[in-house]
Amino acid sequence: MATQARPTGASEEIQDALQRLFSLDSELYRGRGFLERRIGFGRRPAVVVIDLANMWTQSGSPFSCEGVDELIANVNRLLARARAKSVPVVFTTMGYEVTEGPNSDAGLYRHKLPMELFKLGSPDIDVDERLERRPNEQLIVKKRASAFHGTYLSGFLRSIDVDTVIITGVTASGCVRNTTEDAINEGFRPIVVRECIGDRIPGAVEWNLFDIDAKFGDVEPIDKVLGYLEALPASADR
Amino acid sequence: MATQARPTGASEEIQDALQRLFSLDSELYRGRGFLERRIGFGRRPAVVVIDLANMWTQSGSPFSCEGVDELIANVNRLLARARAKSVPVVFTTMGYEVTEGPNSDAGLYRHKLPMELFKLGSPDIDVDERLERRPNEQLIVKKRASAFHGTYLSGFLRSIDVDTVIITGVTASGCVRNTTEDAINEGFRPIVVRECIGDRIPGAVEWNLFDIDAKFGDVEPIDKVLGYLEALPASADR
Amino acid sequence: MATQARPTGASEEIQDALQRLFSLDSELYRGRGFLERRIGFGRRPAVVVIDLANMWTQSGSPFSCEGVDELIANVNRLLARARAKSVPVVFTTMGYEVTEGPNSDAGLYRHKLPMELFKLGSPDIDVDERLERRPNEQLIVKKRASAFHGTYLSGFLRSIDVDTVIITGVTASGCVRNTTEDAINEGFRPIVVRECIGDRIPGAVEWNLFDIDAKFGDVEPIDKVLGYLEALPASADR
Amino acid sequence: MATQARPTGASEEIQDALQRLFSLDSELYRGRGFLERRIGFGRRPAVVVIDLANMWTQSGSPFSCEGVDELIANVNRLLARARAKSVPVVFTTMGYEVTEGPNSDAGLYRHKLPMELFKLGSPDIDVDERLERRPNEQLIVKKRASAFHGTYLSGFLRSIDVDTVIITGVTASGCVRNTTEDAINEGFRPIVVRECIGDRIPGAVEWNLFDIDAKFGDVEPIDKVLGYLEALPASADR
Repeated sequence: MATQARPTGASEEIQDALQRLFSLDSELYRGRGFLERRIGFGRRPAVVVIDLANMWTQSGSPFSCEGVDELIANVNRLLARARAKSVPVVFTTMGYEVTEGPNSDAGLYRHKLPMELFKLGSPDIDVDERLERRPNEQLIVKKRASAFHGTYLSGFLRSIDVDTVIITGVTASGCVRNTTEDAINEGFRPIVVRECIGDRIPGAVEWNLFDIDAKFGDVEPIDKVLGYLEALPASADR
Repeated sequence: MATQARPTGASEEIQDALQRLFSLDSELYRGRGFLERRIGFGRRPAVVVIDLANMWTQSGSPFSCEGVDELIANVNRLLARARAKSVPVVFTTMGYEVTEGPNSDAGLYRHKLPMELFKLGSPDIDVDERLERRPNEQLIVKKRASAFHGTYLSGFLRSIDVDTVIITGVTASGCVRNTTEDAINEGFRPIVVRECIGDRIPGAVEWNLFDIDAKFGDVEPIDKVLGYLEALPASADR
Repeated sequence: MATQARPTGASEEIQDALQRLFSLDSELYRGRGFLERRIGFGRRPAVVVIDLANMWTQSGSPFSCEGVDELIANVNRLLARARAKSVPVVFTTMGYEVTEGPNSDAGLYRHKLPMELFKLGSPDIDVDERLERRPNEQLIVKKRASAFHGTYLSGFLRSIDVDTVIITGVTASGCVRNTTEDAINEGFRPIVVRECIGDRIPGAVEWNLFDIDAKFGDVEPIDKVLGYLEALPASADR
Repeated sequence: MATQARPTGASEEIQDALQRLFSLDSELYRGRGFLERRIGFGRRPAVVVIDLANMWTQSGSPFSCEGVDELIANVNRLLARARAKSVPVVFTTMGYEVTEGPNSDAGLYRHKLPMELFKLGSPDIDVDERLERRPNEQLIVKKRASAFHGTYLSGFLRSIDVDTVIITGVTASGCVRNTTEDAINEGFRPIVVRECIGDRIPGAVEWNLFDIDAKFGDVEPIDKVLGYLEALPASADR
């Protein structure tokens, strides 16, 4: 895995302790033969941008994340390269048809989180305009954490012959992790871009990317992913 | 959430730091209105016992977990109460038909972990006999981390009118977490029993139960779950 | 199954032959012990209204169906009874974000049918206004034939404790049948209302309801379903 | 679609009427712009052999099908060609862990059909030995009609880069049709081999292949499929 960035917002002492815990755990894993294999990049990638909508990217909402400006700048570097190579791009957001009462499509999540804020039609759930979504780029309005669960994402990606999913967005502890797990479960190679993943609480990016890299997908630095996209053959030849 | 047990196998200093990090994060969450709601117990539960098969419960395998004896004792207390109330019990394990070569049903996981060890028919993948699986209790041989993904679990549970899934087993950072996420995604109330969840690396139980309780399910102490089972009406009346 | 209506639009002779074929087949099935069991009505139903949107209900489209006015009148009788009992109602339609080119969410269906007509935002895909959809009634914009596949329907229905799916709409040979199959696969009792199902080609309602009643769900006359809804206890007590 | 074989077991008169009905329907479809497009063969196929297990292929069971000897001979011609090209082969059967009582994994199907006959471990559910299943060929023991629903099939096929599913087996009105629908829903090109599909009641092969070819997959004659397999590049190059 790429060198761990440190959890911002926690003291140096806590940060150090967390790093020592990951070192201890990595050592145990390596003694068992884990952390030695990579899934690797495939032949035809798609980029998935998870929940970089205003509810998460603008300040003042319960769902606002940390470090979003830098995150969006990083995702935009990736998108520029992907679009230049005609790599499909999929955005996600969350939104509900019925936000109150017994027929709410928020399901059981509304018993856990303030999901009533995600009203279909509200600008709060629009993709952050800094990402400049294009008309031929899918927008999946999901109801659950995973971009795959209860959506047409896996069927869509298979129908256009995608085998690799490059994952970016927020949050590490919620939608990003659940999407990554579903990606490998559905048979797609998950590549999680270290500098393109955020959260709202200190430590959550770190411990979730640790688990993901050990079990569910390859966590890679953005430069490596940019290099992979750069080296891709033209769309028709891959 | 139930008081956090401390990660065994790490120094006191690391344990303390991790607890301070969770406190910091909980404070931030509470300031946003999170951690205030509970999904709650439903009307008709089932107990799911994840991967308490020999590969994870016996020592000497790359997948061996820590503290298994106590874990199994706890799960058995839960199972005794569940069986007394005719609550359905489902066990899972992992196993593959073809463990080598291009037609392996291990899929992309074999590019990450030594999945070739999970051969269908091997006693290594049998449920630990201390759990005394009964003939009318399902055994799901899953191929992926989640007990739901690529299995008949959700269809089966819906067909027998289950609305609540009581989750136990290993590992917190893999199959338990992915199962819990799928449970809420599929519309079942996930109740994760604190003392019945294990892992093989220090810290992983703690940070995963922290994320789960914040977003995906209710992490509850075993005594509360035993009390709930005890108070259930007879099968026909619930 | 309810007495078969005759396929309109085909000659008497063809209609008679088809009925004789069904009789022959039913006899063979009964000799094997089939057609003897019923799934039956459950405790908490939802009504699903499949694709009664303008593309199918108004004349002049490639997807226009036969006998729609009577069909809608029948569905409205059912909806009135369901709404009076606070039974959840779900409508479906089809719509695509990207209708042309390699990133179309129409997937492989566009290689089979003129799916490019189903543009998100077009009034053609709106639910026929004669059905007077209410604000608390879900509208699922599906991408595939089944109302369940690639949608949040099963998770939603489980989260509100539904065990029975009352199926209406068009077409028998496409979305209705695929939805019914998924309903039983997902663990819901499928009840298909004979007088509320349509198609665009003669015979297709008949042969599909024949297969459905033999294998996938109970095909029932509208009067029986109305009686069931009438007899339901109030929402809180069921 | 390939020239329709006639339904055996029905009188000439009924057969003629059914053919006239299909002609009438095809004419209507063509006037609407349907039946003009083909999904086409993809780059990397897999062959799926549905439920050619003893319960369906041997006489004397309630599930026994018609014309099985010829069907198996046809499937074997296809398998020989597929194996020569290292095309992955997947077999399915049905089987239940618990066949009686409230915890049966037969789910709601047991309220429709005598599913209690499908006991895990019984030779009745073994693949017919005339098909000579090889050790590296998957066997999926499904619980529902579709080979995809509640199984790891779509994740497995995607993980080995398959884009086309060549469908064979029984029954047209049940598992074959539901599998074909799921195949296109999941993003795989469904090719249904006309001479390799069976059923137990007269007419069911014909009306189901008619619907499938109109909406869900390409129904093709065996000679065309054999030619496609013959022309495939070696496994590493496709």
